[in-house]
Amino acid sequence: MDQDGALPVQVPSAVRAALLAPLVDHHCRGVRRDELDRARFETLITAAGTPAPPGTTHFDTPLGTAIRRWCAPVLGLDPHAPPAVYLARRAELGPAEANGRLLRAAGVVAFLVDGGPDGGRDGELLTAAEMGRLGGAAADEVVRLEPIEEDLAKEGPTAVGYPRALAERLADRASRAVALKSVAACRHGLDLDPARPGRGTVIAAAGRRLARPGEPLTDPVLLRHLLWTAVDVARERGLPLQVHTGYADPHADLTRSDPALLTGFLRALRPTGVPAILLHCHPFHRQAAYLAGVLPHVYVDVGLGPARAATGSAAILGELLELAPYHKLMFSSGCHGAAETSHLGALCFRRGLARVLAARLGEGEWSTADAARVAHMLGSGNARRVYRL
Amino acid sequence: MDQDGALPVQVPSAVRAALLAPLVDHHCRGVRRDELDRARFETLITAAGTPAPPGTTHFDTPLGTAIRRWCAPVLGLDPHAPPAVYLARRAELGPAEANGRLLRAAGVVAFLVDGGPDGGRDGELLTAAEMGRLGGAAADEVVRLEPIEEDLAKEGPTAVGYPRALAERLADRASRAVALKSVAACRHGLDLDPARPGRGTVIAAAGRRLARPGEPLTDPVLLRHLLWTAVDVARERGLPLQVHTGYADPHADLTRSDPALLTGFLRALRPTGVPAILLHCHPFHRQAAYLAGVLPHVYVDVGLGPARAATGSAAILGELLELAPYHKLMFSSGCHGAAETSHLGALCFRRGLARVLAARLGEGEWSTADAARVAHMLGSGNARRVYRL
Amino acid sequence: MDQDGALPVQVPSAVRAALLAPLVDHHCRGVRRDELDRARFETLITAAGTPAPPGTTHFDTPLGTAIRRWCAPVLGLDPHAPPAVYLARRAELGPAEANGRLLRAAGVVAFLVDGGPDGGRDGELLTAAEMGRLGGAAADEVVRLEPIEEDLAKEGPTAVGYPRALAERLADRASRAVALKSVAACRHGLDLDPARPGRGTVIAAAGRRLARPGEPLTDPVLLRHLLWTAVDVARERGLPLQVHTGYADPHADLTRSDPALLTGFLRALRPTGVPAILLHCHPFHRQAAYLAGVLPHVYVDVGLGPARAATGSAAILGELLELAPYHKLMFSSGCHGAAETSHLGALCFRRGLARVLAARLGEGEWSTADAARVAHMLGSGNARRVYRL
Repeated sequence: MDQDGALPVQVPSAVRAALLAPLVDHHCRGVRRDELDRARFETLITAAGTPAPPGTTHFDTPLGTAIRRWCAPVLGLDPHAPPAVYLARRAELGPAEANGRLLRAAGVVAFLVDGGPDGGRDGELLTAAEMGRLGGAAADEVVRLEPIEEDLAKEGPTAVGYPRALAERLADRASRAVALKSVAACRHGLDLDPARPGRGTVIAAAGRRLARPGEPLTDPVLLRHLLWTAVDVARERGLPLQVHTGYADPHADLTRSDPALLTGFLRALRPTGVPAILLHCHPFHRQAAYLAGVLPHVYVDVGLGPARAATGSAAILGELLELAPYHKLMFSSGCHGAAETSHLGALCFRRGLARVLAARLGEGEWSTADAARVAHMLGSGNARRVYRL
Repeated sequence: MDQDGALPVQVPSAVRAALLAPLVDHHCRGVRRDELDRARFETLITAAGTPAPPGTTHFDTPLGTAIRRWCAPVLGLDPHAPPAVYLARRAELGPAEANGRLLRAAGVVAFLVDGGPDGGRDGELLTAAEMGRLGGAAADEVVRLEPIEEDLAKEGPTAVGYPRALAERLADRASRAVALKSVAACRHGLDLDPARPGRGTVIAAAGRRLARPGEPLTDPVLLRHLLWTAVDVARERGLPLQVHTGYADPHADLTRSDPALLTGFLRALRPTGVPAILLHCHPFHRQAAYLAGVLPHVYVDVGLGPARAATGSAAILGELLELAPYHKLMFSSGCHGAAETSHLGALCFRRGLARVLAARLGEGEWSTADAARVAHMLGSGNARRVYRL
Repeated sequence: MDQDGALPVQVPSAVRAALLAPLVDHHCRGVRRDELDRARFETLITAAGTPAPPGTTHFDTPLGTAIRRWCAPVLGLDPHAPPAVYLARRAELGPAEANGRLLRAAGVVAFLVDGGPDGGRDGELLTAAEMGRLGGAAADEVVRLEPIEEDLAKEGPTAVGYPRALAERLADRASRAVALKSVAACRHGLDLDPARPGRGTVIAAAGRRLARPGEPLTDPVLLRHLLWTAVDVARERGLPLQVHTGYADPHADLTRSDPALLTGFLRALRPTGVPAILLHCHPFHRQAAYLAGVLPHVYVDVGLGPARAATGSAAILGELLELAPYHKLMFSSGCHGAAETSHLGALCFRRGLARVLAARLGEGEWSTADAARVAHMLGSGNARRVYRL
């Protein structure tokens, strides 16, 4: 990371060093390996999944402005380059060079990469190993739960054999992972009965589900069963469980994505000792911060929130720091598709946290040592501890 | 709008000009045409609909303080005039002069006026045309849906004839309007089944409803039917659909006013091409901003929020700008009854946005051209496009 | 309260005086009378009720940092003292001296003390009278409702005699109190039917409840009955009703603690004239501020929120002041167990409010007189009026 102008405020040098130190990005997706034309690029920088309405552009968002401001210089352009100029330069450099520059600019020491719906097999996105190589960082795999079940369903197990087959499959995939991740919020919502469903209930639900094996997993009983099977595996292997919460894409329902809906499940999870990490959380990050404050095994990040909000990142991080213990907050970029979201995830986290810490330092409320230590904890220390990196 | 001291921060002249440029107020109510004594005036500046408790005053609110600060000079008084002095001066000028000064001070180029529960027939409030004349602006009519149904119900159609009669009535009223508006949030809540109800279901519900024709429309089936009938009309005529969300008055229930409850309806609306504009939204404006970000036909404003919050407007607008695309945000005053709310709606929007833009400019995150362009889009450009003004 | 460096910003002397004037702490708990070792102290400064995870400390929270910054000097240490040094000094002074210094540093003129689950009989916490004596302030008792019912249930009344026995017991306890308080949010949730339950329903529920008299009161019918019985008593004696809302401890469910869930109950309460005070409210304080704005008998505070958030208190108070009338906001520390939470409740309220007022003064939006008057209202005036102190 370029050290000049990177932070928006003056902070003592120890705090500056802590803020600019390498980050552990404990949750990201791969970035696209191919060249991106404007239509494709625009689709990658929005959660809408659709082109902007006629006469408008997805560059007209806080994230889009941040790309023009902060990523343009990484590609050798002046800040605030127009979208067309930016994309022309990106094409000129080619995807490998552009991706490499942006990933390295993020200043990340380790990427924990969710392979996504198909575990990265379609080949469009860089694998974890490639993310690490291109970004000059270590890389590990986060295994997404639901696609494993969906693959299994297509193979046609019997309903009676489903629980065991699922457990074995999860255990196998987990053997190469540093964490498991649930996107139940996007399949059904987090308003799930927290209790582990009984074997008979699961087999009955599996019977119905296996009659339409090509469909996504949306059955609440089977989603719960998957979660609890994952808990068994996570406990066995000492892995944390990531759970997507808060905003996602137009298919998810925000009223069913509040992490507070997980309260019962998180309470039930506690005796297992499996850490739970609430991902993204916005606009429910205060609720998530509360849960991280009262439940010893619960952690929180705000994922792509800072990059999406850009200058607004300080407000989001400030709200997290109303309640969350410093040892429970982690950085992730939540990046996906466009390498810009990796760079900006890191940059906007650092800039937002710099503002939050500067406010505490300026009025003498925190010592320099406190601020530097907390910046290290959030940026990498907590993730190293929880993920045993 | 007075150009001196209007903005709370220094911004480049292009940004200043954009912030002070005439606004399109895409959603307001008329203001009272009569002289207002203190009791009446106090009732108009609160959503409570009741006098302040003994020994207190509704002037002791952020809005009340803003009236004394910003409206007093428009009436020729010093800033911070006491309430009694303010109201005496208002009476001295007379309602036409006071209303005219305040509406013109808003610096609005076009008012889109919701005629309210009775379409303005009681004569207490200025009509759209009068608002325009007094405020030196163009004016158009927004047609509120529920009163149309309530008028129809009183006329005693048959249940079988109800759907067609309603459709005809809506089409007729829409012919003079620039938008349709639903207040289903205040009648039932936004927790409505998103699907268009079947004809048989509607006729059955109409049969029950027509047995008590003088009552407000609160039946969820008929509210949904009304919405979908409005969608037909809006599609036919190229009109957008405004939907009230967030806080309202003591009769509405905040737990049923979250715009995220509309997610299913908004998804179902998308293929029709009818734009939906989420009004007010506070304290769920982050949810609304998310919806505007992921659904191409959804827009958002914060209505009276900035005027009610006064200095707090920057925080609200800042939160909107965490997620909302610039081409999806619009200004409205949400004014009602007291012309002060028109002036302050515009003023607090401009001042809050000035602070938000200044924060982005000051740290070099946005260019001057970006800030000026976004100020224009929010202030008038987006509304001109969506309402085809 | 020490006048030097107490406020984070320059404000006119009248505002400074108003901010530093004695506060009425209208809702607090007693503080522990015994010496606190590190494990015990850590448990008192978190809502988790558990030790921090291995390798971490509850001092690593905004509250913990504030203790080291602001309470250390009260005990004669330098700001930012390490936890071990802080606790050694605290032990050296002894609990009476440490408690006295911290309570007096709060600058409180009256403590309204909730005796807690057992009305303070276990003797661990200082009584209201002791809080007053040690803190150099007046003190009054707030009576918590649920423990009264739980005591009664253990005495084995008949189900038929239960309503009358409860009413008599409440009336008796209320005779020594300045307010009644419900923690229904922590026993069931605020999603209660707002209507007063019928006598038959209550007796039936009491029959079931009296079969397990040693259990906490969680039955929704009996919680409603208790609330409405309390309303009768409160009306009779002219007492306000405090209701816990928002975050609490790991046993409460945040999705059922939103004060907006009380809307129906608050509407039904209005004709009785009994004031309702929404306690804590975070992260739903905007919802609470709205209710305080539209219902004439509803008041709001943010309790321990400012102390927990420390530097973040300004954002919370700023959000309250988006909507809440000045005559509806009150200060409480929500302190409990550690006297530090009393001092910091007061300090962070004052500092946060100072920032909020300075923002309004600096841009000329409020007059000095306005700011000073509002600071007095929030700090003590409103509580004096509502509690008839």
